[in-house]
Order: sequence, then C-alpha cells, then structure tokens
Amino acid sequence: MKLEKNSKFLIIGDSIGDFGRARPVGEGLHAGLGTGFPRVLDSILRIKGPEYGIRVMNVCTSGDTSKALLERWQSDVIDLKPDYLAIEIGINDVWRHFDEPYRNEIFISVEEYAANLQKMVDITKGLKGLYFISPYLMETNKKDAFRAMIDEYHDAMKAVALKNGATFIDLQAAFDKYFEHFHPVSMSWDRVHPDPTGHLLIARTIALAIGLISE
Amino acid sequence: MKLEKNSKFLIIGDSIGDFGRARPVGEGLHAGLGTGFPRVLDSILRIKGPEYGIRVMNVCTSGDTSKALLERWQSDVIDLKPDYLAIEIGINDVWRHFDEPYRNEIFISVEEYAANLQKMVDITKGLKGLYFISPYLMETNKKDAFRAMIDEYHDAMKAVALKNGATFIDLQAAFDKYFEHFHPVSMSWDRVHPDPTGHLLIARTIALAIGLISE
Amino acid sequence: MKLEKNSKFLIIGDSIGDFGRARPVGEGLHAGLGTGFPRVLDSILRIKGPEYGIRVMNVCTSGDTSKALLERWQSDVIDLKPDYLAIEIGINDVWRHFDEPYRNEIFISVEEYAANLQKMVDITKGLKGLYFISPYLMETNKKDAFRAMIDEYHDAMKAVALKNGATFIDLQAAFDKYFEHFHPVSMSWDRVHPDPTGHLLIARTIALAIGLISE
Amino acid sequence: MKLEKNSKFLIIGDSIGDFGRARPVGEGLHAGLGTGFPRVLDSILRIKGPEYGIRVMNVCTSGDTSKALLERWQSDVIDLKPDYLAIEIGINDVWRHFDEPYRNEIFISVEEYAANLQKMVDITKGLKGLYFISPYLMETNKKDAFRAMIDEYHDAMKAVALKNGATFIDLQAAFDKYFEHFHPVSMSWDRVHPDPTGHLLIARTIALAIGLISE
Amino acid sequence: MKLEKNSKFLIIGDSIGDFGRARPVGEGLHAGLGTGFPRVLDSILRIKGPEYGIRVMNVCTSGDTSKALLERWQSDVIDLKPDYLAIEIGINDVWRHFDEPYRNEIFISVEEYAANLQKMVDITKGLKGLYFISPYLMETNKKDAFRAMIDEYHDAMKAVALKNGATFIDLQAAFDKYFEHFHPVSMSWDRVHPDPTGHLLIARTIALAIGLISE
Amino acid sequence: MKLEKNSKFLIIGDSIGDFGRARPVGEGLHAGLGTGFPRVLDSILRIKGPEYGIRVMNVCTSGDTSKALLERWQSDVIDLKPDYLAIEIGINDVWRHFDEPYRNEIFISVEEYAANLQKMVDITKGLKGLYFISPYLMETNKKDAFRAMIDEYHDAMKAVALKNGATFIDLQAAFDKYFEHFHPVSMSWDRVHPDPTGHLLIARTIALAIGLISE
Amino acid sequence: MKLEKNSKFLIIGDSIGDFGRARPVGEGLHAGLGTGFPRVLDSILRIKGPEYGIRVMNVCTSGDTSKALLERWQSDVIDLKPDYLAIEIGINDVWRHFDEPYRNEIFISVEEYAANLQKMVDITKGLKGLYFISPYLMETNKKDAFRAMIDEYHDAMKAVALKNGATFIDLQAAFDKYFEHFHPVSMSWDRVHPDPTGHLLIARTIALAIGLISE
Amino acid sequence: MKLEKNSKFLIIGDSIGDFGRARPVGEGLHAGLGTGFPRVLDSILRIKGPEYGIRVMNVCTSGDTSKALLERWQSDVIDLKPDYLAIEIGINDVWRHFDEPYRNEIFISVEEYAANLQKMVDITKGLKGLYFISPYLMETNKKDAFRAMIDEYHDAMKAVALKNGATFIDLQAAFDKYFEHFHPVSMSWDRVHPDPTGHLLIARTIALAIGLISE
Repeated sequence: MKLEKNSKFLIIGDSIGDFGRARPVGEGLHAGLGTGFPRVLDSILRIKGPEYGIRVMNVCTSGDTSKALLERWQSDVIDLKPDYLAIEIGINDVWRHFDEPYRNEIFISVEEYAANLQKMVDITKGLKGLYFISPYLMETNKKDAFRAMIDEYHDAMKAVALKNGATFIDLQAAFDKYFEHFHPVSMSWDRVHPDPTGHLLIARTIALAIGLISE
Repeated sequence: MKLEKNSKFLIIGDSIGDFGRARPVGEGLHAGLGTGFPRVLDSILRIKGPEYGIRVMNVCTSGDTSKALLERWQSDVIDLKPDYLAIEIGINDVWRHFDEPYRNEIFISVEEYAANLQKMVDITKGLKGLYFISPYLMETNKKDAFRAMIDEYHDAMKAVALKNGATFIDLQAAFDKYFEHFHPVSMSWDRVHPDPTGHLLIARTIALAIGLISE
Repeated sequence: MKLEKNSKFLIIGDSIGDFGRARPVGEGLHAGLGTGFPRVLDSILRIKGPEYGIRVMNVCTSGDTSKALLERWQSDVIDLKPDYLAIEIGINDVWRHFDEPYRNEIFISVEEYAANLQKMVDITKGLKGLYFISPYLMETNKKDAFRAMIDEYHDAMKAVALKNGATFIDLQAAFDKYFEHFHPVSMSWDRVHPDPTGHLLIARTIALAIGLISE
Repeated sequence: MKLEKNSKFLIIGDSIGDFGRARPVGEGLHAGLGTGFPRVLDSILRIKGPEYGIRVMNVCTSGDTSKALLERWQSDVIDLKPDYLAIEIGINDVWRHFDEPYRNEIFISVEEYAANLQKMVDITKGLKGLYFISPYLMETNKKDAFRAMIDEYHDAMKAVALKNGATFIDLQAAFDKYFEHFHPVSMSWDRVHPDPTGHLLIARTIALAIGLISE
Repeated sequence: MKLEKNSKFLIIGDSIGDFGRARPVGEGLHAGLGTGFPRVLDSILRIKGPEYGIRVMNVCTSGDTSKALLERWQSDVIDLKPDYLAIEIGINDVWRHFDEPYRNEIFISVEEYAANLQKMVDITKGLKGLYFISPYLMETNKKDAFRAMIDEYHDAMKAVALKNGATFIDLQAAFDKYFEHFHPVSMSWDRVHPDPTGHLLIARTIALAIGLISE
Repeated sequence: MKLEKNSKFLIIGDSIGDFGRARPVGEGLHAGLGTGFPRVLDSILRIKGPEYGIRVMNVCTSGDTSKALLERWQSDVIDLKPDYLAIEIGINDVWRHFDEPYRNEIFISVEEYAANLQKMVDITKGLKGLYFISPYLMETNKKDAFRAMIDEYHDAMKAVALKNGATFIDLQAAFDKYFEHFHPVSMSWDRVHPDPTGHLLIARTIALAIGLISE
Repeated sequence: MKLEKNSKFLIIGDSIGDFGRARPVGEGLHAGLGTGFPRVLDSILRIKGPEYGIRVMNVCTSGDTSKALLERWQSDVIDLKPDYLAIEIGINDVWRHFDEPYRNEIFISVEEYAANLQKMVDITKGLKGLYFISPYLMETNKKDAFRAMIDEYHDAMKAVALKNGATFIDLQAAFDKYFEHFHPVSMSWDRVHPDPTGHLLIARTIALAIGLISE
Repeated sequence: MKLEKNSKFLIIGDSIGDFGRARPVGEGLHAGLGTGFPRVLDSILRIKGPEYGIRVMNVCTSGDTSKALLERWQSDVIDLKPDYLAIEIGINDVWRHFDEPYRNEIFISVEEYAANLQKMVDITKGLKGLYFISPYLMETNKKDAFRAMIDEYHDAMKAVALKNGATFIDLQAAFDKYFEHFHPVSMSWDRVHPDPTGHLLIARTIALAIGLISE
C-alpha cells in the first residue's frame, strides 16, 4: 500500500467522477461522493484497508475540461490541502471537437491540454503523491477519429506524468482489455459514461495503482 | 410522385419511428405522429404535395424486433387497411446480441429476421406499394462487430425486398454519406437514435424513394 | 448558395424562433437551438450543405417586440459578431393591439416599428448579409383587423429591407400559399405559433432565400 | 322565470361545458361543475333566484360530437331524470373537417348532425323543458370555411329546435355582438374555448333564455 | 354608469382579490387578474359596458392588512396612476386576533385600522373616484366574537368613507342577504374565502355601486 | 384501565380518524395509522400503558356517513374480530344538508342515523366493549343551523349508546370547553377537521373514557 | 405550573425539534411549529393550561451542533427576547464521530460542548427560566460506543445545568424506561429521530418538568 | 472458480437484494438488477471472470419473509430454471417481532423459518449449486434482543445448509469483522439496509464463496 495512514485523497475531474457528488466538496455519508468511481474507490479502501483511514474527497464536475479545472484549482485543490491528488481529465477537451464541430472557440488543443496539466503540477505544492488518470473512449477502433484524438491526449498526459514523476493510471488499457470480452454498447450508451461495472473497473484500476489490491 | 392520391401511408417499426407517437395509432394533430421521422415525412408531404392528400399513420413501437412486429401485425397493419406500407425494423434484432450478451433467448438470427420479413410480405394483401426501410448504425467502421452484423441484416432485408418487388430504402447509405462530414457523436448519443437532423435525413430519404422530392 | 463558408448565421426574433432555445445563446447539441425553425434550418444546412460549415445561432425570445429586440441588441447581436443576421419580428408589435386592447402603453405603432428596424440596420456593422423575415398571421381573410394590421407591418418591413439592400423573406406569402390547401386550424391553435410542419415551411422559405435549396 | 321550483337542470355537451367537471356527474361543491359556463350559470341561479332551488348538473365531455352524445345518452341523460335538458353540441362535428382533414371516417355531416339531434328529442321523455345551445365560432368572417360550416350546423340545430318546440339559444349571435367591440383573440386562443368572460357571456345568454334575468 | 370612459380602475386588497393574480400588477390576458372577483368584475365590464373601455388592474395580495397596504402604497397605487381606486381590506386586521391569539405584535386595532384607511385617502391625489369595499365574515351569528369584531371594523371603514366622500360598498350586507337562503358552509370552508359564486356576488355588488348594472 | 391486556381496539369512522391511514387496514409502523387521533391514541397507550399491549387498528374513511359504514361493516369490522370497537360517525350525515343543499338523495335523516347505529350494535357480536364517539362541530353558537342539527344527531347517538349499554364519548363537550379559551378558527379552517391539538384533545378524551388516564 | 402567564417559551435545538418548522421562526398556525415535539408541547399547553397563554416558539434547525447554535444565538435567541429558553442539543456533536469518521474537523469534543453550553448561559440575560434538554440515543446497550459517548455529553450538560441553576430534562432516562417495553426499532429507523410516539414522550417529559402535568 | 461456464445464477431474497430491480425478473442493462449487491456481483463476475459468461438474475422483493418466498417459488425459481440458486432471506422473519410487536399473526418462528428453508431445498430440482446467504444485523452487541434473534435464525439457516450439502455464506461474520473498524451508523440508518460499501462487501463475500476471487 503506497498511501500513508490518515491522509486525504482528493479526486478532481469531469463527469466520469461527478455522477451527482455533493457541492462544494463531495464526501462522507449518503450520496456525498456521488455514484461514480470515487464512491467505489472509497468502498474498496474501507473494505480492504480500513486500518489506513484514507479520506476520499471528490471535486469532479460534469463537462469540465483541463482549462476549467485550472479555473477552480485554488478553491477545489489548493484550499483543500490534499495529501494525494488524482486528476481525471481530458475527455471533454477532445469530445467537443466532434459533437460541437462549429464551436471552435471552446476546443482545447493537445498542446494546451499538456500545458494545462503541467501547470497543475507546477502550482500544487506539498503533495505526497500525484496520480494522472487517463482519458479514454469505450471504442476499440483506433482509427475512429474520436478514439485517435483521445489516444493523442492520453499519450500527452502520460508524458506529463513521466516528466514529473507522477503515477499514470491507464484507463484506456483497462477498458480495451475488458472490451475483448464485451462490446462497448453493453457498458455505455455514449461510449464515455460507464455503467456501475465500468465504475468498479475504474476504481479497481486506481486501487491497483495505489497498491491497495493486486490483480 | 409514386403514391396515388388520397391514400393511406402506414409506417410500422421500432423506436426510431416511435418517439412518443400516440396509441393505439399515431396520426393527426399535435403529437399524434410523435417527434420522429414519420412526423417529418408528413410535413414534407403536406408542403411538397398537398394536392395528393396522403394520410400518414404511425404504428412504430420502441424496442420492437421483427418478431414483435409479427405479433401485432393483425391489429396494427391488416386492420388498418393501408394503401402503402413502410417497414422499418431490424436494429433491435441485432442490438440485443451486444448490449444484453447473456440473454440469448431474445436474440433474432439473420435467418429468422429474413423469414419474419418474408412472412410480413406473405400475409399482407392488397397493398399498392411496399417499402422496406433498412436497419443502420451510426458507425462508419464496418469492422465494428455491431456494424458488421447490422450490415448482414441490412443485406438480408434488401434481398427480401428485391425478391418481392418491394422498394428498399437504404438508410445506412444515407447516414454513411452524412458522416463523411460529421462524426456520429454529433448526431446521436448511442449511434442508433437520431437527433432532429437525423430524422429529417430519414424522412428525406423516404421522400426521395416515393418520388416526392428529388436530390 | 449565397452564404460564405464557415460563417455565423444569427437569428434574432420572438417566440416563433424561441421554442425552448438555450440561454444566453441557443446553439449546438441537444435542445440548444430549441424546437422551432432555427433547429430545422440548421438541419437543412447540415444535410444539404455540409461543406459550408454554417454555424446557426438562435437568440429569439418569446414575447419580444421590435422595441424589446433593440434593448438587447448589444449583447445579443453586436457582441456575438455574426456574419449573417436574420431578424424575425413584428407579430407581437401588432398582436397586443388585439389581445390586450386596454394596455396601450405597450403598443408599437407601425411608424415606431419601421424606425426600430431601421435602427437595427444602422447600428449593426460588418455584416456579410442581412435578412428580414416577415411577420405573418395564419389567417387568410385580409379584411380581418389583425391580419390587416399584420399586412401593414409586413409591408413596412419590406420597405426597410428594400431601402437598405437587405433580403426580405416573405413568410406570409408562404403561409397563404399553404392555406390554399389546408385550413389554418390544422397548423396552429392561435394562428401564430406553427406546428412542426409550419416550422419546416419557415425553414425551407429561409433556405430558399439563401440559395441552399430550390423549389 | 320559466323553470319550476326544485327542479333538475341537466347540461350535456362538449369541452365548452366540461372544463374539468367531476365524473361521472359534475355537480355540487368545489370543482364539481368544472370552471366553465355551467358553474357560472349555477352561480347566477343561486344569486338571482335562490328561492327556485334549481339543481344544475353537468355531463359535458371534451371532444364529444353529436354522435358521441348519443352513445352515452342512457347513462348520462335518461338515467339522471332531468326536468330540464340543455344540449350544447356541434363544434366538434365541424372542427374535425378542418383540423384533421385526412380522418374522414370521424366526420359528422350536417345531415347526420340534424338526425342525431332529432334522435335525442325522440328518445328523451318527460322533460319540462328542452334547450338547444348553438355551436359557434369566435370568428366574425362569415366567409371563413370553418365559420361557414358552423353556421350551417347552427341553422340545422335551430330547425330541429323549432320543429320540436324546444328553445334555441343562439350563442353565435351573442358572440358576434360581443366581437363588435373586441377582437376574438382577446377572448380565446383557438376561437373555440372561451376565457372566463366568454363563459359568463354564455351563462348570461342561457339565463336570459330561461327568464332568470333580463338584458 | 358612474365611471368615465377609458379610465383605469385599480383594486388593492388582500387574498379575497388576489386568487393567483400576476405580479407585479395583475391585468390583461390569461390569469393576469387571478380567478377572484377582479376577474369577474372585468368580465361584467366588458360584457355590459364594452363602450366604456374600463381597464381593471389588480394589486391585491394574500395575507395583507391595512398596514401592509400602506407599506406598498407608493409602488402599487401612486405609481400606477389610477383614475378610480377600490380598497378591499380589513379581514386580516381582525382574523389574526382569533387564529394567532398569542402573536399580539401583529394585531391591528380598530383605531389603527381607521387611521390607516384615512392615511390612504390623504396620500392619494387626483382620483376620479374612491371605493371602500367592506370586510365581511360569512357568519350570520352577530354574537360570534370574530363576526362582532368584523362588524366593528366594517363600521369604522364606513365612517372613513362617509367622512371623505368616498363610496362604501357593503359586502357584509350582500353576504348576509345571500345566507338567508344558504348556509355559509355551502360557499366557503373558512367563512372568508368565497367560491366562484361568492366572487360573482362581490363583483355584482361592485358593479351595482358603480352604476354598471341595476338589481 | 378498562381494557383487557393484549386486545384489539378497532376504530371505524370518517375523515376525522382517516387522515391518511393505510389501506385496507391502518395500523403499525410509519404512517399506518394516519396522522389523526387514532395515531395519538396509540401513542398514549404505548406511553401510559405499555404493559397492556393494546393493538390499535384504524378503518376510518374520509367522507363516510353512518350508511357508508354499514356497507363495509363485514370486511372492516366483523372480519377483523375486534375486542373493542369505537364508532366515530355522524358529521357527514349532517354536513351534506348544508354544503350540498340540492343533493337530497344523499342526506341521512336523524331517524336513519339512529337506526344505522342500532344496526351496527345488532350485527356485531362478541365485543368486550363498545364506544360511541360523538359527532361535533367546532362552533359554539348552538343556534347555528349546522350546530343545531349536529346536536340532534349527537343526542341520538347518546340515546343509542345508553340503550345498548355502550360508552358514549362526548367530543362536543370536550371541544365546547376548549373553545371557552380559544376561537374555533385557531384550530380548524372548516370547523370540522382538527389541527394536531384537536387530535390530541380527541385522543385524550377517549383515553379518559377507557380509564387509561385521569383528568 | 412553573411558567408565568403570557410568557414566551423558546426552544432552540437540532433536527429533533425542527421537523419542518417554519423559517425564520416557527410558531403559530398550520405547520409553523413543525411536526416534532414543540408542536406537541404547544398542544399540551393549550389543552392543559389554556389560562396561562404560553407562546411556544421553535428555532430548532436540522443538523446543528452546540457550535452551530452559538453562531445564530443573537438572531435566534437574544433578538426574540424569550422569557423561558429550552436548549435541546448535543446529538450531532457526538454522531459525527461515528457516521463521518474521517471528517475530524467537524467533531465537537465534550470539553468544547460543555464550554459552548456555558457560553450560552453567559450571554443570555433576563430569562425567567432555563431548561437543558439532554441528548439521548435510542439504544439500551450502554457499552455501545455511540451510546457511551452520548452518556458522556449527557452528563456534561447535566453538570452545566446544575452549576448554573438551570433545569435538566433527562430524555435519555425517559427513553430508557420506554424501551423496557419496546425495542428501539419500533420507534425509530436510526435510533435518533423519534416517531410521533417519541415526540409525545419528549413533550410530556418537558411538560412534567415545567409542572404542567404530573405523572 | 466453482461455477460452470454459461450458467444462470439466480438470487432470490428480500429488500437487501431488491433495491429497485426490474419486474418480473431483474437482469440485463440499465437498472435491471437494481442497485444492490446482485448488481455488484454481476460487475465482479464480468470484470474478474468474463470468460465464464455467468448470467445473474435477481428476483429479490422488498419486505419478503421465508414464507413469502415460498409463495412465489414456482414462478420466480422453478420456472426460471437456474443452474445456481442463492437464497438471501430471514431478516424480515425476525424484524417484525420488534418493529410491529402487536401484529403476531405475521411473525415467522425459527422453526417455521427452518422448515421453509428445507422446503425450498426439497422442491427445487436440478441445481448445480445452492447457496444460503445468511441474515445479519449491523449491530455488534450480541445481547441486543434483535441481534440475538437474528443469530438464532442465522444458525438455523446454517444447519439447513449443512444438512443439505449447500454452501452457507456468512454475511454476519463479514459485517462483524468490518465493524471492528467502523460503527454501524457509518453504513446504515436502520442497521439492515447497507450503503454501497455494504453491498460491495456482500458481493465480495459471495464472490469469495464461489471461488471467483480470493481474500
């Protein structure tokens, strides 16, 4: 287990992690953490490592891009003084190119995306650990234009993670493996938002990365 | 224009045509025809061919397969005495193989699908015209397993149409052409249910087939 | 086709164009454009002229008069920097005289109406094209007091359009022709707000005016 | 006053009288009578003729034609043993010709309409008084096709009333007079369903006919 | 008829006149005037005196006392520049003594009530006519403590009206006469808020006072 | 305490006891007993006499008259095999005479009322105790026509109770005493349905009658 | 009876007393006091001591701790000028330690709790009487960690009460006695929020403490 | 892994497994399986053993006792032809003794409970595996009356399982271990219905029992 006892684990991201979490900070009883992967990760932590006392906090917000995260970084990351930070972002940076093809002023290029990620690293001090959770598409055809661009941003995030000594958590790899057995339409209507099985898959992938469980 | 004046044009199918149509028969004022392509087709008929007085009737039902259509054929087709009949079916025959992979008792094989279509032809007498509207997937990758199976059913419908002298309306071709310019995620969350642009595209494709409009 | 590629086409008007459009600016996915004629026009543009990449934006607001448009002209027209502008206004300028006969302080006279339209022209710079979309009433009796006053405003708009080299789109003519075949009660409860067929008719009339389609 | 004391006054008709009345019989406290003219008539009877003790009962049903009334005549008229009967019907017999132009199997011709009214007279025994309340359209243009057909049915009802010694209550005349001062759009969106002023106008016209009030 | 043509008739009061009126000023189409007596009065004015063109405006607010009226007098009376003003107030001044017996800081004494009414007269200039509409209770037992106090306030209003040359409209007398024939429970659950018959009764009483109709 | 241990106490009546009780039989957890006096009585029994284990069951139904009770006596009384039965009925037998003055076929005369009560006694065998809970009106003026008729039915119930050796619980006396201190409008809008204080007053009056508590 | 006539009795606390009370101050008609014990206490006061005219006011707020009370003490206690004050607080001070074990910044220690209570005493002047209503848990196992900590806070409140000459009302004792006969699951899902029987039990316990009733 | 490939795994039980599952049989996409442990178990099966193709079906129904299960055994177990059956029942058999202490006709004794379980075994033929999932209470105090009775039924189920060669899955042991670290109020309001962490804990316990995962 790579996390220290009694530490705060903060997750910031987009709708994948939001799923109805409480505002301003999602945590605690009832639906505080929402119904997405942060809730499942919290459950796994309580069941598999109750002695660690890890406190999961969720500040994911639907629709956010890497640019939007930076705009709320002070209140939603710095002020909360996390010990560990997980950044799950990028899908919306890409998606808008395809579902809103005329609104080019809201597009985030891969260069801007990488720069935004680097800026997040630069302005966040005192972390005990930093996790980059990759963008993904539940689409196995790598020639699909949407998937191809996701792969580009995925690789950009990986590069930022490596350069800064952060951990890169590859959700695309996890989903690709899963879809060797099932078609994506069994998990998601839009190939982005997972069903509960997908959230468990994401949470397990993170739990593996922090050493809580093994394959 | 291939339709005779003052005739009834009946559309039977699945959720693509349903979109909130009235029960038991969708037609007439307000939301009677629903908000899908039958409504748009009715509008095009009124605007482009008001002198024909074509009466559009909609008995599409969400979730239906070719098997489900046959089960309600007497009340929903025979009893309504249509002059022209359009059959839009097949997507659910295929979809269940992928989104409900364990429920094999509800799968319709391509052989059963073709046989069902043939049976529809055999038991429907006195039509002035019969239209088969193809299944489709808003997916341009022909190697995608879902798309590949759709293509198989699409071809099976085409064969039944040809064999019986019916008109085959190729929606897959229409969508494929459209997606040369846009990615499918701009039109649909699930690559099956169209947005209003998609419904207009379908209605225009039918209007072309019945000679009401030209390209 | 009279529109240049990759340009913005902005529609400002009243409830005919509003029909649930998003705020502050209606565009993009889902119900952003509302369910009225701007949505249909966007669909026709995508289907018939995908290579042009025309971006439709909708700032129509229910209940607005020409006076109300001017009050929000800066934020809703100037700030959005449209390439093409379509102004659909006038019905409420007239209607209030008949449905609220005692509230004379909210009436807009035909002189004020014409002056408001001229002011819109004067303060809007840099357009590549300007379209005036006429007021109308789904009433074929030209002696009806409401219709007679609509005709007066309709002609006033036409004069402003001609004087300023703008295109005048005559919806009244389009509806009058349609109602040679159908009674207005088949399209509208209040002879103002169209059903989907009416919105398609309006969108087609605009599409004809911009040279996208031909009769 | 032409009604006998402590008698039952039953109103059967369409949506004009329905307006939310209770089922199976609308009467009594709260919203029992609905919010249309039967409620207002009951109020006028209580205020102007409390000593008569007239009991108003409402069995009007939205959408009904003369044919539909006959189908429920036994339960809704005969079984209720009214002393006085008021029949308000005919607008839907006409309206469907214009708003549902293709559904000709639901049209009621003027001959069938007159025959239906005569049948109502023939099968209803023991009345102390019978009132025919005319169909109308809030449209002053007598050349309008809808108004013209309404006038035809209006005259047909008048003829049936005269032939059978019943009282004919001419709502069209009452509305025409009112619209010398106001345009119909000030009273109704669809020129059929009145606002509260219209219901008061109808109720007063009936109250005049039964001699409860004078002009 | 005592009102001049084309004048504004403003009604200020409590829940008896409110009944869902629009904010900030209730008037015009649809439910603008609410469903209480102001709506009925407007209907009577339109039907019986259309040539007068009287504009009814409603600023009654549920729960108000004479004190509450004064607090909004500037915006709701002075600023609206009425020609005629009708003040319907007092029931809540009394009612609170009985239904909230412990909250004495919200009670309005009869002296304060009279002073409030006088102040309304003093600060309102330029009226063509002023009407005081009396408080009432649908209770015929004059020894009932609630009724007895209502009578006291009723008389206080009458005195203010006489002293200032205003017209006093006695609703209590109108209701008392009505309840010679019916028990109050047939008109109201709480003996304060009328059913539609009660609103018609109030509107007729006002119409009589302004000379629009005669008994 | 007059009730035997571990016995069933069944309450049948009208809306006073109904107040949202569960169907078919109101008892047990949550809102099973409703929110009226049966719920309060159950609470008093649990707090003051937990050792008795009395099971309260509620079959009161809004709007019921003595006649309506008899129609469901088999299923709602006999079949439930109560040890003790409390009958709270009569207000609706009277009320309809005043709030629905024209619907005389639904009136229950005092003779029919008394006969209905006697019949209840006659057909119910094997009770350990029978309680008649009096009708009442929250009106202190005994000359009020409604109150006067309530008193008549109240006395009729008392006579039936005395004749059959049943206990008569006088709610009117309890309310009259309470209203020496408060006006009825502080407890009820319609002088029939109590607020929570009224339900506690009723429950206490019953608890006194069964000897559970003393004044 | 220990309360003086015509005095104000203010209750401040947490969700136990809140139960839907009105804002900003809960009192008076309808649901003003909420549906919890303050409502029942008000009813008992009206029924058992109407001559005292005690005015009950409720400013309990769900979720509050002793710390939260102090933050609104000026507006919710001082400004309301109570004669008697009842403080019902402490459960949330304890509960959070168990249901939100990671959010230690919101925990209130027993020392801070006692200090908060003392501060309430210190800053509240001019009371005729002060009541401390104890925290409790509907759990009879004193070794349960939650119950054990409640007991600690309960004793701390008792000590503050004694030290300051205030009355201590021991709800835990009242509940413990009740649960000799019933299991806590019959009264509450979460062992904190009472059902109506529990609220009656609390109100009676307070009524006993103020000498209004005797056992 | 103890389950054979491509087999059906049917879960029958009470509200713990119900949690909104579809009717008549919960399975498949969306919320078919509900949001309780059957959904989580299905996710674990798909992620950890996709090659097994196990089909999870859920026929748990809120409120059911062992007696209620038997009443629907034919339609909900036999007719569905499961390969593996998991029976999760008993909490309601016990709970009613404590939350509905007077309704003894609905209690299920431990003898009847054991007999019911045995009958389930006897009438179910052709299973490849049978799992008994134990009742539990999230209460660590074994002297608590509710917990003590749960333990009794838990042991009875274990005995039936052993006697019949079925697998016994001990949820009580799993929860007891979990509550060494957390208080039950952190997981459940009523100590019966788990939060998502509890459902994951149950699903994992079952997954361990079927050999899908190891500790």
